[in-house]
Amino acid sequence: MIAVVCGGVGAARFLSGLLDVVEQSEVVAIVNTGDDLELYGLSISPDLDTIVYSLSGSSNAETGWGLSGETWAAMEALDRFGAPTWFRLGDRDLATHLYRTARLGEGATLSQVTAEIVSAFGLGLAVVPMSDDKVRTRVALASGEEVSFQEYFVKLAHAVRVTAVRFEGSAMAAPAPGVLEALGAAERVVIAPSNPVVSIGPVLSVPGVRDVLAARRATVSAVSPIVAGAALKGPADRLLEELGATASVGGVAKWLTGVAATLVVDRADEGRVGEVESEQMSCVVTDTVMRNRSVAARLAEVAIGGTP
Amino acid sequence: MIAVVCGGVGAARFLSGLLDVVEQSEVVAIVNTGDDLELYGLSISPDLDTIVYSLSGSSNAETGWGLSGETWAAMEALDRFGAPTWFRLGDRDLATHLYRTARLGEGATLSQVTAEIVSAFGLGLAVVPMSDDKVRTRVALASGEEVSFQEYFVKLAHAVRVTAVRFEGSAMAAPAPGVLEALGAAERVVIAPSNPVVSIGPVLSVPGVRDVLAARRATVSAVSPIVAGAALKGPADRLLEELGATASVGGVAKWLTGVAATLVVDRADEGRVGEVESEQMSCVVTDTVMRNRSVAARLAEVAIGGTP
Repeated sequence: MIAVVCGGVGAARFLSGLLDVVEQSEVVAIVNTGDDLELYGLSISPDLDTIVYSLSGSSNAETGWGLSGETWAAMEALDRFGAPTWFRLGDRDLATHLYRTARLGEGATLSQVTAEIVSAFGLGLAVVPMSDDKVRTRVALASGEEVSFQEYFVKLAHAVRVTAVRFEGSAMAAPAPGVLEALGAAERVVIAPSNPVVSIGPVLSVPGVRDVLAARRATVSAVSPIVAGAALKGPADRLLEELGATASVGGVAKWLTGVAATLVVDRADEGRVGEVESEQMSCVVTDTVMRNRSVAARLAEVAIGGTP
Repeated sequence: MIAVVCGGVGAARFLSGLLDVVEQSEVVAIVNTGDDLELYGLSISPDLDTIVYSLSGSSNAETGWGLSGETWAAMEALDRFGAPTWFRLGDRDLATHLYRTARLGEGATLSQVTAEIVSAFGLGLAVVPMSDDKVRTRVALASGEEVSFQEYFVKLAHAVRVTAVRFEGSAMAAPAPGVLEALGAAERVVIAPSNPVVSIGPVLSVPGVRDVLAARRATVSAVSPIVAGAALKGPADRLLEELGATASVGGVAKWLTGVAATLVVDRADEGRVGEVESEQMSCVVTDTVMRNRSVAARLAEVAIGGTP
């Protein structure tokens, strides 16, 4: 069994490759919920949905989020009220949030509801939120203001300087059922090429997760989301710099060395293997830019211990 | 100023006629919220929305509820989850519920949110929920089961026998700000041609409402929703019979005589004027079947004291 520590888009691409080389029933995805939000009374879990939509072939390839063939009638109608519509919810996407909210309201846990959604989308892997408890990533800005992750990421388009990140509720959160067991028992654990600060960070902040990974560090590998000093998507490069690391494979290694023994980096970073090794991680070089599914499959094979 | 005690569709038609003969700024609609429900975490107020959609020319004339030109992408997507979809929510209609839910979550009252929605739809009359507190119409069935109003009305298509109706939360509910004032100060009060049991009944059950109407009964008129022994729409006729009254203008008069001195009935009931009068109500005969707006306008004129 392979366990994958996941954020959203990068993790979804990695998982789609992994599912080409490993049976769905052998994969457990443990997913960041620090990005979750409540909007218009609805419970929204962007990273969980990105993974489910993407793996089921339902995701919108153009936008990188939401569903393909989506319509926007509800959002357009919301304009009438002058309500904030910076977080775009498509009509079909809304159904997922309505269902999740209804089930949570009935007393189901987030991991139960997620399993139902995964099954409704015809998927066979396990997709597990990091915790059934509420953990919320809060981002302190250079302006002095502290905002939610989605305000930072979507509303402000991450075009602001960050001074600190914290995971509200994390200290009191319990890992969701099966999370520590999967991370402990998996043949290999892979930390997906997601933002180490705000996607992997919240998962590591859940009590017990960091310890179980540290204890089996030798068989945990991570895929660097930083290639040639830049994030492929999102603000991972700037966040690393702003929080005192460097936007490089060395910076990623420094961030993850406590929980993973191997860092998989792109060929573009072949010259930086030494930076990784000086953080007490072994470094594997391969193609990590998943421009198509066969690259993703080869990357997955390498990440779970195959030859590059 | 004219105050109108309202349910949904019948009241909306009556109001559209009234607004042809009275300035919008002179009309206060006091609306049943016993039909309200929470679904998928959303706060839904069917009668309030029916009135706003209808008066703003946005309502769906075919279905008699919801918005015209509506799409159903969210509902269709909900099918995937096997979620109950008997209460149909169109994509654009969802926006109203999302907005209402968001504002209530921020601490706004239902009457504040309703005023915002009324204004967003470009209307100038006052539309006021009977109470900002939660009152829920519960329907006891001959089967022994008790269901919510919407389960009775929509899910069971009111094709079941009813033994009792109660308005849960009503005894502790306060009338919304302005309700008793409007009912007390209005030049005329009209009880719209809505279901006397489950549309007008909840409004009358709010503490203070019945008393203020009884005290000024002489200038309160009601329009009978029963014509020639049958309800024009919905189960008013059966409910009256099931709850021990008769499905006739006489039955309506018996139901409302404590709070109104005049009953406006259709020409089809000309022969039943005596039944009304024997309930200590004066009876006015005119066209009450609002097949178009000019009939509605003439009816409104009669109801507020004009000549039939």
